[in-house]
Amino acid sequence: MAAASADQHQPPESPPLLILHRFPSFKLSFFPFLRTKYTVLDPHADPPDPSFPALSKSARLMLCVGPTPLTSDDLVNYPAVECVVGSSAGLNHLDLDACRRRRIRVTSAGDAFSDDVADYAVGLAIDVLRRISSADRFVRAGSWPARNEYSLGSKVSGKRVGIVGLGSIGSRIAKRFDAFGCTVTYTSRNKKSHLPYTYYADILDLASNSDVLVVCCALTNETHHLIDKDVMAALGKRGIIVNVGRGALIDEKELVEFLVRGEIGGAGLDVFENEPRVPKELLELDNVVLSPHKAVMTPDSFAALEEMVLGNLEAFFANEPLKAEIEL
Amino acid sequence: MAAASADQHQPPESPPLLILHRFPSFKLSFFPFLRTKYTVLDPHADPPDPSFPALSKSARLMLCVGPTPLTSDDLVNYPAVECVVGSSAGLNHLDLDACRRRRIRVTSAGDAFSDDVADYAVGLAIDVLRRISSADRFVRAGSWPARNEYSLGSKVSGKRVGIVGLGSIGSRIAKRFDAFGCTVTYTSRNKKSHLPYTYYADILDLASNSDVLVVCCALTNETHHLIDKDVMAALGKRGIIVNVGRGALIDEKELVEFLVRGEIGGAGLDVFENEPRVPKELLELDNVVLSPHKAVMTPDSFAALEEMVLGNLEAFFANEPLKAEIEL
Repeated sequence: MAAASADQHQPPESPPLLILHRFPSFKLSFFPFLRTKYTVLDPHADPPDPSFPALSKSARLMLCVGPTPLTSDDLVNYPAVECVVGSSAGLNHLDLDACRRRRIRVTSAGDAFSDDVADYAVGLAIDVLRRISSADRFVRAGSWPARNEYSLGSKVSGKRVGIVGLGSIGSRIAKRFDAFGCTVTYTSRNKKSHLPYTYYADILDLASNSDVLVVCCALTNETHHLIDKDVMAALGKRGIIVNVGRGALIDEKELVEFLVRGEIGGAGLDVFENEPRVPKELLELDNVVLSPHKAVMTPDSFAALEEMVLGNLEAFFANEPLKAEIEL
Repeated sequence: MAAASADQHQPPESPPLLILHRFPSFKLSFFPFLRTKYTVLDPHADPPDPSFPALSKSARLMLCVGPTPLTSDDLVNYPAVECVVGSSAGLNHLDLDACRRRRIRVTSAGDAFSDDVADYAVGLAIDVLRRISSADRFVRAGSWPARNEYSLGSKVSGKRVGIVGLGSIGSRIAKRFDAFGCTVTYTSRNKKSHLPYTYYADILDLASNSDVLVVCCALTNETHHLIDKDVMAALGKRGIIVNVGRGALIDEKELVEFLVRGEIGGAGLDVFENEPRVPKELLELDNVVLSPHKAVMTPDSFAALEEMVLGNLEAFFANEPLKAEIEL
């Protein structure tokens, strides 16, 4: 077996070594199952595992759980790691440059959550435009019998939807809005000629031609605060922003100002710059829908992810192709 | 001009007579405009219009505003009415049998609101499945930093969506859910062979093959309490109901029982049996989304409706075809 020779600190019969890289609070339902297949090396084991310091030096495989940051320094501590199996759609928590330099292969959650995020993005947009959460608050507060008038919001059908990042998630969002009779346009690193939507190279052009701006690109150095005050001004007073990507894609301080001053029409936000902190000004606004970073998954797709992650762990030791491997 | 001879109580130069049939509280933005084109006869005019009793006997045209009930007795009071121009999608407030007997033509809002209702129905379904309003409550209550765990709800993509009534609204709902990768089936008075969705003649079969039941048919004697306890039992513990039709399509008392006992999975309700009364048990449930009968329209489509209604009033006196005329 290929793994046996490299796992030199491990008795020959032991299962292959696997580093579990996680925030201490992250616990997954399949951890116990992992121990039936692998010698799991967990820096947060309680009580601590005395063999960890030695064995972790020779482990070739790491499972990085959710958005746990993986830095260049972490990798120095695990010199034998050849592959990081990720379980997250976004990869901004991984130092991909360091992985590239060390020739470490990296996998992501791939498409496992793309439908969920796309579904949620559309749900947030309808909710903000048609004010569904606000309506629910209105009814629960007992205001309906007292006040016959209620804000009807704004029509969804026919809206111009600009998508920021037309990847696995963005293209699913596009397909959904298309069925609502919306006009879909996008910006992306590259024009996707095989797709029927209008491409804008410049996000300002996208914003000034959109009623709804849906942010679903990866967070990188280039996309940090991509949605700045110029983009918000271009979107305009009736425009709304939906963010299902990462909080720092938007200049949150500016977003709060624009919302409070009524200079954009509303926002549906699943992500924030300093989660779980949500700017307190937003809690008072009726034209925003706030969500605790949960677009990313449902139990249904978590089961699909679990299957893919476990498959990638097996595939690595069997020298078989990995699913959702990232080009580095 | 054809109208002139019939409007015998009116001076020859006056504009044609128009009865405004409305709840006193219903006021529309185009009422002032109507007075520039018609002699508007308003039983709720304040101060009362002394010419109303006489003129209303010879008016040939009535504008029925929104869901104002129009009974057989009302029509006896207006013996010359030949046409009722409606401004509502549902027609259960009109005594259509009486109209048929008196050979009165009737128009509805036609498709003016179909997109809005369809958009809203999908929004409610996503909201209930993915718990968006509940998430918004959670964040606004400041619970996110305190409790890291949050219900992720249930996946939208791939759900089996059963549509009750595949008319103008239902077919738009079907198209939207199709784009989410849902499987759409339906029941309807007749099988629509030109549409690609599976038809169930029996609503119990539809419910037992659905995860989401969307109620959007007309309320008639036949459809009153169509969604009864047998249908709910067939839908089952994980199934959800969305109602954007009329409250009385569902046996509301049973629905409340099923929700409280957890015998269905959730509900998104825009309509109720005794509006604006909402059963108080629902106000405490986290798996329902409550909305004050507002799916039906947005300001955008209200403008489109206004254009159609004004067009129908003109078309009647010009002996031109009416839009959205009902077959009686």
